Amino acid sequence: MQPRPNPSAAHSALSDHFRRVRQASLALTAPLSPEDCQAQSMPDASPIKWHLAHTTWFFETFVLEPHEVGFQPYDPAFRVLFNSYYHGIGERHARPLRGALTRPALATVLGYREQVQNRVLELLGSSRSAAVHALVTLGCHHEQQHQELMLTDLKHLLSCNPLQPSYAKRWPLQRAGTAPLGWHPVDAGLTTIGHGDDGFAFDNEGPAHQAMVHPFVLANRPVTHGDWDAFIADGGYRDPRWWLSEGWDWVQRESVDAPLYWRADGHGAWTTFTLHGRVPVDPHTPIVHISYFEADAYARWLAAHDQRPIRLPTEFEWECAARSPHQLQPLQGLPLLGQVLPGNFAESQAFHPMPLVPRSDGKLQLFGNVWAWTSSSYAPYPGFRAAEGAVGEYNGKFMVNQQVLRGGSCATPASHIRASYRNFFPTHARWQFSGVRLACDV
Amino acid sequence: MQPRPNPSAAHSALSDHFRRVRQASLALTAPLSPEDCQAQSMPDASPIKWHLAHTTWFFETFVLEPHEVGFQPYDPAFRVLFNSYYHGIGERHARPLRGALTRPALATVLGYREQVQNRVLELLGSSRSAAVHALVTLGCHHEQQHQELMLTDLKHLLSCNPLQPSYAKRWPLQRAGTAPLGWHPVDAGLTTIGHGDDGFAFDNEGPAHQAMVHPFVLANRPVTHGDWDAFIADGGYRDPRWWLSEGWDWVQRESVDAPLYWRADGHGAWTTFTLHGRVPVDPHTPIVHISYFEADAYARWLAAHDQRPIRLPTEFEWECAARSPHQLQPLQGLPLLGQVLPGNFAESQAFHPMPLVPRSDGKLQLFGNVWAWTSSSYAPYPGFRAAEGAVGEYNGKFMVNQQVLRGGSCATPASHIRASYRNFFPTHARWQFSGVRLACDV
Amino acid sequence: MQPRPNPSAAHSALSDHFRRVRQASLALTAPLSPEDCQAQSMPDASPIKWHLAHTTWFFETFVLEPHEVGFQPYDPAFRVLFNSYYHGIGERHARPLRGALTRPALATVLGYREQVQNRVLELLGSSRSAAVHALVTLGCHHEQQHQELMLTDLKHLLSCNPLQPSYAKRWPLQRAGTAPLGWHPVDAGLTTIGHGDDGFAFDNEGPAHQAMVHPFVLANRPVTHGDWDAFIADGGYRDPRWWLSEGWDWVQRESVDAPLYWRADGHGAWTTFTLHGRVPVDPHTPIVHISYFEADAYARWLAAHDQRPIRLPTEFEWECAARSPHQLQPLQGLPLLGQVLPGNFAESQAFHPMPLVPRSDGKLQLFGNVWAWTSSSYAPYPGFRAAEGAVGEYNGKFMVNQQVLRGGSCATPASHIRASYRNFFPTHARWQFSGVRLACDV
Amino acid sequence: MQPRPNPSAAHSALSDHFRRVRQASLALTAPLSPEDCQAQSMPDASPIKWHLAHTTWFFETFVLEPHEVGFQPYDPAFRVLFNSYYHGIGERHARPLRGALTRPALATVLGYREQVQNRVLELLGSSRSAAVHALVTLGCHHEQQHQELMLTDLKHLLSCNPLQPSYAKRWPLQRAGTAPLGWHPVDAGLTTIGHGDDGFAFDNEGPAHQAMVHPFVLANRPVTHGDWDAFIADGGYRDPRWWLSEGWDWVQRESVDAPLYWRADGHGAWTTFTLHGRVPVDPHTPIVHISYFEADAYARWLAAHDQRPIRLPTEFEWECAARSPHQLQPLQGLPLLGQVLPGNFAESQAFHPMPLVPRSDGKLQLFGNVWAWTSSSYAPYPGFRAAEGAVGEYNGKFMVNQQVLRGGSCATPASHIRASYRNFFPTHARWQFSGVRLACDV
Repeated sequence: MQPRPNPSAAHSALSDHFRRVRQASLALTAPLSPEDCQAQSMPDASPIKWHLAHTTWFFETFVLEPHEVGFQPYDPAFRVLFNSYYHGIGERHARPLRGALTRPALATVLGYREQVQNRVLELLGSSRSAAVHALVTLGCHHEQQHQELMLTDLKHLLSCNPLQPSYAKRWPLQRAGTAPLGWHPVDAGLTTIGHGDDGFAFDNEGPAHQAMVHPFVLANRPVTHGDWDAFIADGGYRDPRWWLSEGWDWVQRESVDAPLYWRADGHGAWTTFTLHGRVPVDPHTPIVHISYFEADAYARWLAAHDQRPIRLPTEFEWECAARSPHQLQPLQGLPLLGQVLPGNFAESQAFHPMPLVPRSDGKLQLFGNVWAWTSSSYAPYPGFRAAEGAVGEYNGKFMVNQQVLRGGSCATPASHIRASYRNFFPTHARWQFSGVRLACDV
Repeated sequence: MQPRPNPSAAHSALSDHFRRVRQASLALTAPLSPEDCQAQSMPDASPIKWHLAHTTWFFETFVLEPHEVGFQPYDPAFRVLFNSYYHGIGERHARPLRGALTRPALATVLGYREQVQNRVLELLGSSRSAAVHALVTLGCHHEQQHQELMLTDLKHLLSCNPLQPSYAKRWPLQRAGTAPLGWHPVDAGLTTIGHGDDGFAFDNEGPAHQAMVHPFVLANRPVTHGDWDAFIADGGYRDPRWWLSEGWDWVQRESVDAPLYWRADGHGAWTTFTLHGRVPVDPHTPIVHISYFEADAYARWLAAHDQRPIRLPTEFEWECAARSPHQLQPLQGLPLLGQVLPGNFAESQAFHPMPLVPRSDGKLQLFGNVWAWTSSSYAPYPGFRAAEGAVGEYNGKFMVNQQVLRGGSCATPASHIRASYRNFFPTHARWQFSGVRLACDV
Repeated sequence: MQPRPNPSAAHSALSDHFRRVRQASLALTAPLSPEDCQAQSMPDASPIKWHLAHTTWFFETFVLEPHEVGFQPYDPAFRVLFNSYYHGIGERHARPLRGALTRPALATVLGYREQVQNRVLELLGSSRSAAVHALVTLGCHHEQQHQELMLTDLKHLLSCNPLQPSYAKRWPLQRAGTAPLGWHPVDAGLTTIGHGDDGFAFDNEGPAHQAMVHPFVLANRPVTHGDWDAFIADGGYRDPRWWLSEGWDWVQRESVDAPLYWRADGHGAWTTFTLHGRVPVDPHTPIVHISYFEADAYARWLAAHDQRPIRLPTEFEWECAARSPHQLQPLQGLPLLGQVLPGNFAESQAFHPMPLVPRSDGKLQLFGNVWAWTSSSYAPYPGFRAAEGAVGEYNGKFMVNQQVLRGGSCATPASHIRASYRNFFPTHARWQFSGVRLACDV
Repeated sequence: MQPRPNPSAAHSALSDHFRRVRQASLALTAPLSPEDCQAQSMPDASPIKWHLAHTTWFFETFVLEPHEVGFQPYDPAFRVLFNSYYHGIGERHARPLRGALTRPALATVLGYREQVQNRVLELLGSSRSAAVHALVTLGCHHEQQHQELMLTDLKHLLSCNPLQPSYAKRWPLQRAGTAPLGWHPVDAGLTTIGHGDDGFAFDNEGPAHQAMVHPFVLANRPVTHGDWDAFIADGGYRDPRWWLSEGWDWVQRESVDAPLYWRADGHGAWTTFTLHGRVPVDPHTPIVHISYFEADAYARWLAAHDQRPIRLPTEFEWECAARSPHQLQPLQGLPLLGQVLPGNFAESQAFHPMPLVPRSDGKLQLFGNVWAWTSSSYAPYPGFRAAEGAVGEYNGKFMVNQQVLRGGSCATPASHIRASYRNFFPTHARWQFSGVRLACDV
């Protein structure tokens, strides 16, 4: 968020980026009806229409309101309707009732988007303010976060429909094998963790600081659906030995016996729900839609089986590995729209994890596909300060009882992820594209 | 449900009735967007789209499937999607998730309605079956019930929106006074209760039987919003003396301090939400949207104040009064569309209770406006038998832990109500147009 | 509660009765440790110590406080601690926390009992007040009610202990057959229901009034454990056809598959918990510890099986039968302590239902053994008025969402029951000695 | 848990220690009745009798069963009754129903204690096994943990009684001032965290490892009741700015407006419940019975007020400070029974935090008084392995969604605490003696 040497060039590049990000949100909703955009299937999820409006509200509230000359709100009521959780902004509409907001209509929200977007572009064109630049950049990353949530919330919604409808036209699932599980040593020691000053980062990624990382090895690929089958077949969901105490309570209380969206097909095999409809489970694809409890239980079960100190990595270990020259960086393999690259991001439009084909150059591929649960609880880095004002509520106030996930997923825009990026969810959450990459002590 | 003397004439009259009823459902949805028809604001309520589809499912399942030659379902999946609670028909989609059914779209449901409707009309034209006649008649009354639910569910939905939108264009609230509370003696003794054989009735209205009704007097008008103000001002919601034990627990647990939809306006007065938006409370209109607990508490409070044995009537007492020649029957004052008659039904399009202007002929007006909570729990009449098969689940299985309401409301079609009609809801329910007409021992 | 012709003789007889009732409470606790008297196993149940104190509180508050000259409370704090639900008396200790009242100790409560008891006796000796007579009589019946609750609450408590301890020394379960199910016609018509003026009754038993009872037949014996076995074996708990809608929800939510206290013994048979410990189910004994939902489901199942309109009786039907000269009245067969008579009451110390051996005189035996669920919801009789003041909270405020039970049980003192007696519990309650006596339309 | 050079001397010293620890448990229960020992006031707490039995069960199950020749259980049923959470041992009695175990009686449990104790002493006298030594040592520390829980559970139980009874005879609360808040710099850098090999430690305290600690300062004393008063007076419980998002939800849902046990006295001041009964809040004593959410909110509020980066310390920061030569170690100031020392432990019998009088030698006093909430979630140290078998369930399976507390409290035995000791509780827990010691960035 530091001032740029040539503000106007920076602002112009930012205008382009802003336009592309905004357009990507609309592209995601293209296959959807007003009704699809209206519904909310659980309190944790939001309607698509709400996402479209809230991301616009963010620009209106944090960029236009303080910086636009003669600012007038599009509609004063939207201040309450589309505030997510910013107490500093005032009242909010209750989250579980977002699906009850049938007015304003989708068409009105699209009009709201267009007007605010044009006003932001105008401001960007006329302003050289570093604050404006920083806030628009933040708003773009905020909107990209919501693009991922639009996909996960929509997936949950469609999964509740007995028709099991598909969002995207049937996409030919890549039939490919995956590498056997292997282990990469990672350089450890006293190491720098967190984001430096190269480009954008959320406040929770800093300050960069020294942390001690002890030697370990990291798995060459995520745990797959096939691996998980073996865990289930071995009674993994019925054996308290593998589970954290709170996890075991959760399994019992919720009668959990498989990952979210799995269903027994009645002939001894499993199917799962995807954004392409219900499909047979493909053993070669990375496991997805599991809770932290399940990820941890799987690691304990495998450790007992293999008699090795296998476990989830800490977020520092993961970041160490992701910064290594042996790691393929996300933007090195920037995907074209509709093309499936090893780094499987939203742009591939697979919206489902793909098998990780072993690379001839032996590089690790940690980004995309599925978020990796880490054993680190979400906590502030040493010296962390939240930003002043309401925008400071973005991250800091969630730093308790959540676990960090790293690396992005098949629903994450490729330009949104980086080695220092910290995602976080409660330990029982499963509707994100969350998976497992194992670590092991040496 | 008895055979008719001239089946074809009866079938032809029924076809007309069927068309009008079906049309009335569509007319109710005319001001609504696909999004308005999609949303569900609580588990007790259903989306408008679901109501439109379920009432059609009823005709398809109970009329066409057994009686149409070469029956083919419109879409086999709808059997599960639009089944409300008939275990005899098989699986059902979970009620709280009806709002998640974004597919089929509203347009598809309208197509479903049209096709099934045409097939029913064709069947009616060609069949002389008494069973078909009886089932189509039942289906029409079933659909009229859902017309009322569409209005109550929609009202609840719109009330959750901070914009407090209105469903109907602003309707000039009738400024009229109301009569002071007075008491009508009702002829009592051993009397016939329940529906005889003149026209349609639900199974729960019979068999007609003798019951002993002890002498009592009935109020000349419902309790009004103004009466209720006095109850609140006297601390009625904070004094356990007036409340049933379970009612007091409910008041405490839910922090109830006024009828549903009331809100203090910040200047010592109350507003309420209507299908015309939020309006000031009019003291002359009948109180509405109260639970059985509140109705009963009000009666106890007034009894203590007036030192008279005031209470809620039993359903038998109410029916006695409603059969009296001193009672204006609902169809005697059949309303024209958009016209407000003393018997305030859905056709008046007020969708809100209106002041009961005293009549010069001294007749009681028990029908329309607000449902009257009675002190009778919903139970089978002596000799009651549910119909055979799944259609027998219509009423009987709800006969526990509910109270009977009588008389219809401003959301009830006028041709749907009669003296023997028994509505029923749990004691905490408030989103129906439920009110109070008091009785008193003599 | 009417004045007596010779107060002092009546007061003297009452003193004896009072002493016997108080002594009976102590006799029930004789086998118990201070710890047994302390614990509370669920919010619906109370500790034995609390029952001992609360019944004393009732005499102190309603008899001594208004009528004793120079009244001083035993301990002012007890007013709050041992108030059950009388808002008119002021604050109450929260019901689910009664088990947390380790102070006062049992010994202190026994001292409290003794002092209050002596003061009541002194008052009875010196007063000729009809009000005192009526209130002491009420207090005795109140204490007898709590004697039954002491047994049911204790049974629930002991059942929670994996040791499955027994309260009473092993009692030789009577091995006897039972009569096959048969039906007794009952004289019906316009009949008097409710308590007249012969002796004590609770306010809810009056006023006596005329009610219309339609012809029916009543079963010659309660449903037995053996009958219930057949219902379970036929899948009765898994078939929604037999269940009220709310009952089916309850079965699913609570995973109910047998009466309370039943447990499969692992070899295809059932055991049940009794106050004599865990024993095999005896098919000849009346079924007990079932909810209203289960009673109703059983009746529907049997009706379908036998193709007869079998159902639960109304409370009026039951009372009609209980007043008949063909019915053995409870006090006709007054049991001696420890002796098992056909009318199986608390005095028999069986504390478990016994087989009903057919009588040679063909008389019905409706009292004792198990309470009979009726299809009548608990409601006021025509003209019912609660007593003035706090004592008026005794019954009236519970008249909603409960069903009436009739006839008493093996835990009811024989002198406590009568034909007009109305017990009441919510439809899911099972820890009382509740069973079924069927009726059938003719 | 390593072998000792001279086993028999070590075993003899351990026998003495074992006897003292066992005796201390009995001493705590001396003022209590069988009823006090029976009751359970919430699912998180256990009855005193259960604690007495469970600590004995631990020795019987983990020491005697594998190591005593010809082992016979005292009572096989106790294996289930008194198992807390060890799945490896088999079934357990449900935790919320521990208060229902009226059998065995307290006297039986005391007999159980004595017999098992004698058998352990005999085993210690005859065995030279290092495993026995390690397990008895573990059992002693386990029992000391339960001594603290006995006090906190008892305090909660007594607080539920409207009589507000006291456990200990009235203890003259020390009237003393406290130092103004000041800050001690702590030596930071790469430092060793965790327990080395000097004496006993739980498995979760190791392995010792290098961690990076960044420079900070630590408060010279805990936050006091007086400090907290200012937070409340400033509206701290009503302002979402100070609260973690989940904490704010908790405050709203539970209507929290003060620490546990506080009650407004009606004249503008606060009282609190102690083991000596209800007393006025003493502003000089350390604040206690607050949740993590409250501790964190207080720090944020003070940071905003003082415009300094004040916050909770991490557990590594706390341990750094506690290992410093400037810190008074717990056993340096070993308290005599009944004497109040600066290190306020269970032996002082204050059972309440005491003002920290500034020391002339300027040493920090981090041990005793109140547990310090840290900002560290409870997680395994690098290389952590749980012990083999059921005893390995002791700690590891709780490592999620809990925060670490450090330093011991006025209810902790002095010989039980050390610099590496990690206590842990969920973020809403308040019934422990939990308080706050603040840190600040430099």
